[in-house]
Amino acid sequence: MAELPIAPLKRILQNAGAKRVSEDAAKEFGKILEEVGEDIAERATQLAKHAGRKTIKAEDVELAAKE
Amino acid sequence: MAELPIAPLKRILQNAGAKRVSEDAAKEFGKILEEVGEDIAERATQLAKHAGRKTIKAEDVELAAKE
Repeated sequence: MAELPIAPLKRILQNAGAKRVSEDAAKEFGKILEEVGEDIAERATQLAKHAGRKTIKAEDVELAAKE
Repeated sequence: MAELPIAPLKRILQNAGAKRVSEDAAKEFGKILEEVGEDIAERATQLAKHAGRKTIKAEDVELAAKE
């Protein structure tokens, strides 16, 4: 948890048109993106295993995100 | 685009049990998380504006992620 650094998270919010972003907003944003990411990561890991691989490939992540 | 650095993205994938993660998988993972993030960020910006604020707060991000 809390793997994603704050600065790029703030930039994503600002790129969407936000004039100012509170520190707590950027942290909450990171928490939510990591939760989404953890679900995709677990599914991608299962898909790689299912394909007989120990290495997660881009195709695993792509398929995991579609589910 | 491509705001999120690769190393923490790899860690999120590895924390889910991935033994090895290809560079392309980590990049694809970042691309997908940023797309999800951009949608939430746009909605959070609208919600802050709707509440008469120029500053995105954590409550905007939280509500945006629920929609």
